[in-house]
Amino acid sequence: MADWTNNRLCRLLGTEHPIIQAGMIYNSGAELAAAAAEAGCLGLIGAGSMRADFLREEIRRARALTDKPIGVNIPLIHKHARACLEASLEEGVRIFVTSAGSPRKVAGPLKKAGALFIHVVASAALAVKCEEAGCDAVVCEGFEAGGHNGREELTTMVLVPQCVEAVSIPVVAAGGIATGAQLAAALALGADGVQIGSRFAVTVESSGHAAFKQAVVEGVDTLLVMKKHIPVRLLSNEFREQITALEAAGATREELAAMLGEGRARRGMFEGDLAEGELEIGQVAALIDDVPTVREVVDRLISGYDAGIGRLM
Amino acid sequence: MADWTNNRLCRLLGTEHPIIQAGMIYNSGAELAAAAAEAGCLGLIGAGSMRADFLREEIRRARALTDKPIGVNIPLIHKHARACLEASLEEGVRIFVTSAGSPRKVAGPLKKAGALFIHVVASAALAVKCEEAGCDAVVCEGFEAGGHNGREELTTMVLVPQCVEAVSIPVVAAGGIATGAQLAAALALGADGVQIGSRFAVTVESSGHAAFKQAVVEGVDTLLVMKKHIPVRLLSNEFREQITALEAAGATREELAAMLGEGRARRGMFEGDLAEGELEIGQVAALIDDVPTVREVVDRLISGYDAGIGRLM
Repeated sequence: MADWTNNRLCRLLGTEHPIIQAGMIYNSGAELAAAAAEAGCLGLIGAGSMRADFLREEIRRARALTDKPIGVNIPLIHKHARACLEASLEEGVRIFVTSAGSPRKVAGPLKKAGALFIHVVASAALAVKCEEAGCDAVVCEGFEAGGHNGREELTTMVLVPQCVEAVSIPVVAAGGIATGAQLAAALALGADGVQIGSRFAVTVESSGHAAFKQAVVEGVDTLLVMKKHIPVRLLSNEFREQITALEAAGATREELAAMLGEGRARRGMFEGDLAEGELEIGQVAALIDDVPTVREVVDRLISGYDAGIGRLM
Repeated sequence: MADWTNNRLCRLLGTEHPIIQAGMIYNSGAELAAAAAEAGCLGLIGAGSMRADFLREEIRRARALTDKPIGVNIPLIHKHARACLEASLEEGVRIFVTSAGSPRKVAGPLKKAGALFIHVVASAALAVKCEEAGCDAVVCEGFEAGGHNGREELTTMVLVPQCVEAVSIPVVAAGGIATGAQLAAALALGADGVQIGSRFAVTVESSGHAAFKQAVVEGVDTLLVMKKHIPVRLLSNEFREQITALEAAGATREELAAMLGEGRARRGMFEGDLAEGELEIGQVAALIDDVPTVREVVDRLISGYDAGIGRLM
């Protein structure tokens, strides 16, 4: 039976399991974060699409749903990043996962507030910079991950051991992890824990549209598009065809960004427009074939982990 | 301590460890295959660059170096594939790993000769076709693998569990595996064993040029190029810059193939021309920092595996 009493990530976060529910635009609101926290994981509210006042409401709603600590994920390129960070601190949040930007930009205020500060990286070199900047842990996200992604194209299998070798702070594996067997694999690679996105996006408590969840259940084919400009992994649909064609025709970063916009992600994942919306999901979509509760997902992760390590004896 | 007495792959291949040394153009001749066999793995002679008479000599040389069974890897698109297969059978080889082509094309003669027959795949759909064609096992090779690669871009972390779910024959994980921790991760994912290329290419016994081995030791940056046409993962060098530029300028498959040619692989990996040659290697190049013997590599894999599973208790 899995016992993580002495796991470094569990001790850092105060969780039962070494599992972080990833912040995901339009999918990870108060309900998902609170359900993940209640199930023994770190739940994150994804602020990537939120204004500070909206985020503040989400934090309060999560607080009403659970007494356990929840965190906030802030992509640092988000135009409301600083305002979201300040609102979160004011609301009492003390665990932050930042991504898409330099951790140095926010290390000062976060450390001053006594907050835990974790940054998402796609290379060992950036993991080292995070440690130097004062991060308490790093999330190492491989090429197979959904949504926005590094340019390095390093996979979880290869990235995690490199980061483990490069830093002494806890390393959290992300990308391609949806099952207990994959959780066991990540820990065997030397990770202290995992961050899971796609699997938690397709749960009852995720704020994504039911049609989006169903599309992931039925779909298998994802592709990392716009590799030269704004790499993002998307489920196959008409919009992805359009953007791939535009890219192949030599569109500039600005033209691609204009077509993408924030509106497309909302349209696809929150409003359920499966044809014209942007459907961000990881390669593990192929292994996702139902829409369970968060509690059920966590139960499966733990029993699958035990089965995974059973194969190694 | 690792004990694979009841491992399905070990029982199928008659090996001590569930490890296949991959067939690799210009790297895996008689010395490498024999050393891998002596170290308790399945050693493969890579026929991808060989004429049938040359392969015949390599098989005989390997036989003189070890009494243990060795196998032959034959890429089925190789123009001498059928002749190599027949020469191998005549020389008494009864273990084949085929790749890059349809397993149906060779299932007849291999099964008739009573040979073990394993095919390399990059998707669960092809794994199912292999099982239907009578394969005894499949090698599932992820996006992070070196050299020629599937178009699917599925990583080892995601591909292996899909294949394990899809077929009942043994599944061998490949791509991104060079350490005992990665071996443990692959088995946790449900694989019965692993196929290891890059790590065995950079050993004393590999037939690759010393300068190529040293370039891998020093290098970290690989890239999958020619994704639309002939996907191949290469170490960073001038030749890769040239072919990437040609590809970006819209070169046809024929133009790229002409620039690549067979001569470039020989020039880079066998003759040691680091600037103008093709240097095929996997993402795990970043984790390779010396040129040990095969025996030392296998010892490290086993001790690293034990350490990897120790982390999971």
